[in-house]
This record gives sequence, C-alpha cells and structure tokens, in this order.
Amino acid sequence: MSGQGGEFGLIARYFAPLAKSAPGALGLLDDAALLPTSRQGVVTTADAIVAGVHFLPDDPPETIARKLLRVNLSDIAAKGARAFGYVLTAAFPRDVTPRWLAAFARGLKADQAHFGIHLYGGDTVATPGPATFSVTMFGHPGKAMVRRAGALPGDLVCVTGTIGDGGLGLAELRAPHRGLSPAQRRFLVARYRIPQPRTRFGEALSRFASSGLDVSDGLVQDLTHIADVSGVRLVMRSEDVPLSAAAAALVKADPGLRARLLTAGDDYEIAFTVPKRRLAACKAAALKARTRVTVIGTVEAGQGVAVLGRDGKALALTGGGYDHFRSR
Amino acid sequence: MSGQGGEFGLIARYFAPLAKSAPGALGLLDDAALLPTSRQGVVTTADAIVAGVHFLPDDPPETIARKLLRVNLSDIAAKGARAFGYVLTAAFPRDVTPRWLAAFARGLKADQAHFGIHLYGGDTVATPGPATFSVTMFGHPGKAMVRRAGALPGDLVCVTGTIGDGGLGLAELRAPHRGLSPAQRRFLVARYRIPQPRTRFGEALSRFASSGLDVSDGLVQDLTHIADVSGVRLVMRSEDVPLSAAAAALVKADPGLRARLLTAGDDYEIAFTVPKRRLAACKAAALKARTRVTVIGTVEAGQGVAVLGRDGKALALTGGGYDHFRSR
Repeated sequence: MSGQGGEFGLIARYFAPLAKSAPGALGLLDDAALLPTSRQGVVTTADAIVAGVHFLPDDPPETIARKLLRVNLSDIAAKGARAFGYVLTAAFPRDVTPRWLAAFARGLKADQAHFGIHLYGGDTVATPGPATFSVTMFGHPGKAMVRRAGALPGDLVCVTGTIGDGGLGLAELRAPHRGLSPAQRRFLVARYRIPQPRTRFGEALSRFASSGLDVSDGLVQDLTHIADVSGVRLVMRSEDVPLSAAAAALVKADPGLRARLLTAGDDYEIAFTVPKRRLAACKAAALKARTRVTVIGTVEAGQGVAVLGRDGKALALTGGGYDHFRSR
Repeated sequence: MSGQGGEFGLIARYFAPLAKSAPGALGLLDDAALLPTSRQGVVTTADAIVAGVHFLPDDPPETIARKLLRVNLSDIAAKGARAFGYVLTAAFPRDVTPRWLAAFARGLKADQAHFGIHLYGGDTVATPGPATFSVTMFGHPGKAMVRRAGALPGDLVCVTGTIGDGGLGLAELRAPHRGLSPAQRRFLVARYRIPQPRTRFGEALSRFASSGLDVSDGLVQDLTHIADVSGVRLVMRSEDVPLSAAAAALVKADPGLRARLLTAGDDYEIAFTVPKRRLAACKAAALKARTRVTVIGTVEAGQGVAVLGRDGKALALTGGGYDHFRSR
C-alpha cells in the first residue's frame, strides 16, 4: 500500500489487520508484496466496481466488500484454481466515514476467513466521484488452468447450482414480484447481493473439465465465449437449465421468463464442458463439494450457442445479457 | 478481461493487441491470465489514479497511460525486481471517445515496448464520475526483494537521479516560475508528466542494497518509512541532496526552496541504504545503468529522519509531503 498521513492511518487501522497472516504481504508495511508461486504459474483475474453502477451507494458496506471478493473468487474457481490472495485499490469519496470503512473492512475480513485468502496490498485514493473498487485476485492452478478454449465435439455442457436467481434478486429489489413467499424473496435478494462462488468444486475442476468459465454476464452470453474460443457449437435445452424453487415458481406463473433467465447475469455459477468419459469423476467431485451439477447440453461441431425449447426448436433470445460498459 | 458487447469491442480493439506477446495473457480471450513465476515469488504492487486528483482530465491520454505504468514500474524497480507485466482496470466516463481510448492505448503500447512488459488482463467499466485507473504490476525479484526493512547503523543513505523536479514541474504547470529558461521549464514539466523509473539500476539493487523504496511522496517522508520499519535513524545533509540544473537555479534565487524540495513528492527516484563494503558494487551498477547515485547520509541507531542544514543543525521541515487521501 502506498501513501501515508491520513491515508496511511486508514490503511493501518482498517486494512493492515487483513494482511496479518500472509507472510508475503509484509503487513502492508512495504511498497510491494511477494506473492507465493507454484510451478504452473499464478492464475490472475481482476474486476472493478463503481457505486451507482455495480452496487447501490446505500448497499451495506459489508455486502459490497463481500461481493467484490466473491465475483473474483468465482472467476478463479471457474479456472480450476484455488484462490490465495488479492490486491485491492479503493477510491473513496472524501466524505467516507470511519463507520463505513470499518464495516467494509469487516466484510473483507469475514470473507477472507471464509475462503482462506489474504490481502497482499493495494492503494487508497480520494475521488470526487463515486466509490470505485478494483480487486486483482490470485490463485494456484490445479492440474492446469481451465480455459475457455478446450471444448470438443462430444463433450457435455454442465452448469453448477441454479441459473437466474441473481437477476431475479436484482429485479426484486427494483420492483417486488407477485406470488413469492417472504423466504423466496430473501433467497433471491441474497443470491444477488452475496454470490456463492463454487470454490470447493472449482478446485477439482481441472481434473475433468475440458473448458470452463464463471457465469456472470448471462449463461448464454458466457457459453458463447466458450463456443467462440473453442471453435465449437454448444447446443443446450432450455428445460434442462436448473432453476431454484423461487425461480421455478415465477416461471410457472410466467413461462416466457424461463428464456429471459438464461441471459440475466449475476449467477456466479460455473459453466463448463466435460468429456463423457470424465462425467463420473465430475459427479464424484460435485458430491464431495456438495455442489449441484446439471448436464444442460452437448458440444457439437460448428459455432455459436443454440438453446432448444420444449419443442426441440431453437429459441430466439432477445436479451443481450449485461453489458457493463453500455448499459449500467 | 471480463465483459462483452460494447465493452468487449473496446477490449478487442484497443487492449487485446497489448497482450499479444505474453503467452500467459491468452490474448485477453479468457477470464483469467497465467502469470509466469519464479522460485522467489512474484513482486506485486498497485496504484490507482483518478482524473482531477492525480492527473488533469485534459492531460494528453498517452501521458496519463505512461505515467500510470511508470509510477508502478518505479515501485517494482525500488524493490530490486524486474517488471514483466501488469493488470489494468479502467473506469471510463460514458462520453469517452474512441480517439481518447486509442491515444491511451498508444501510451500503454509505447511504454510496454520501452520497458519490456505485457498486459495480462483487467476489466473495463463505465463510471458516472471521473476516469479512474488501477494498475497491479508484477515483477521477478532479484536475489531477494529489497524491503523497507533491513537498514542497519553504519549503512549509507543513497538516492538516484535528482530530487524535487517533479514537484517543481507540477508547480510550474500551476504558475510559471520566474527566471527559468524554456528548456528548464520543459525539463521540469516532463519530469512531472513522464517519470523515468530507474528500472535498469533497480534490477541490480538486490545485490547491494540493505533497504529501499521509491521516492513518490517526498524524500523525507519516504525515508521515514525506511527508518520506521528498519528501526533505525537516518541522518542526511540537505546540501548533499542532488538537484537538477533547473532546480538548482530556482534554489539559488530562493534558498528556502531547497528544504521544501525534500518533501515535494513525484520524484520517482529510488532511495536506498547500502552497507559501506558494498558501495563499490553499487557505484559499478550505477555506472552500468547510467544512473546517477548520490550518498546523502548515514544510518544510525535511533529513530526518525534528521535533515541537517549547511550549519550542521537539524532543519525543521514543515511540508508533510503529499497525502493523496487528504489533500488531493
């Protein structure tokens, strides 16, 4: 962490305790940290979030902090790696309060403990604009980094957990759905606010997946990346996509919603492909990690992603998924 | 790089070419990159900059990009490491133009080539506020990472280059100094806008330095970090601090300025300590890297930093150096 004076005080008070147990972080008392490495390299990913764009300025600070870590943990998990630490840069409005900072640091601390990761440094600056955070997350790869490239015709397309809850949770915050129980509402909002990255399952992923990524921009959009980079066609059946009870209740009342959930975003599940001969290993890993895994389609020669409806015909999906740059 | 659509187009057009020659960057076509590693670990540092705070919104985009890389390269160099790559997250105002982006990417490309580094990924998002950039820079350590800790009584205190030019360059942009030649003005402004990180000298640093850091917040403030973390006292002579011809001309006209330059910031030189028996190795490395190195003081038992004036008495320095969080 650089800087000093007021900034240095902030770092010492709120952030240095977050770096205590990582030897290479040097207690944030240096200008740089020393990341532990393994022979296969360090898997690295980064995300930036902006108040009013990616979170609401009055969202609970703990939640903002935890989501910030979790969206990055989800990326590392989907690459078959085990996260070990991160660097945080934070641009705070000048009127940020010690109370807000303390709560933000509590959120970081809680999820550091939960996921076994450490803070390795960063920077804090003042901004006249909205609070802006950037995390660079680091992980040790498994057998090899799972990539977008690697899917082959004949492989199966799989996804962890359930799809569409995060998007529904965001919609619920904007305008409550009719016909949901209070528990279902809470479930959907929690799925939006506090993603559950599939870290335990992700650590096993490199043993059987031929390709993979995390589902953050919408299932169809993200699968399109695998199709494009692998040079294959993915064919999936809309009815096979796993839904939570809450999402299923809403789809029952509005059948057209099912297709929209496939492009809704904010899922933070892992979509991946697996050769048929490795499906048993995949299922064993899922059982061990207590993670639901569902086969939703197959890999074929060709290009693009086709989503088949109940009648076997391809759906025309209108949602373009979240485009962080253009639409929010 | 995550995201797609408009954002994905931006990345493909302007940023993907910056990742072409680093195998582990995967052409930015994945959600994560694979950093090359060495047995000693990866030296990591991060900086964030905000338009209107750390640079002016109408600064040339090439310059903003280059300074962003260089302040981080300076940190890596001061740790005795050789930078190999970086991750960039960028929050752009919605009205950013393709012309601006192209110029920003040109600046990154020019300095990537100059310093032999590669882009390993990142994220681009939209912001309703000022443009905000965050860089996490990675380097391979030398014999070991040079730290703030390690200075011992008897060591010499040294600094590369000249001190105070960056601060004078910033002041020059705000209100031109009297009595400078046009060339001197250009020199000072360039020292502010385009720091010259001591990367070649830095690569040798771990062979002789007992501690070190880059001078970015003001020489005295930064030396105080070495004193604090090493648990020693640094005693330096104000008259021994190397000045450029332009700075010397201004000090001649205003002798009180000399002390203020010691806390001015934006130097991006390396301050370090070296055991006397290794001074010859240090001077040889400086000669080879064509980097000026000046002995400005000694390490003693005790604490804090004392700056002695011409009369041998300690100066009372009022400048607190730059505090990015409180004062800009």
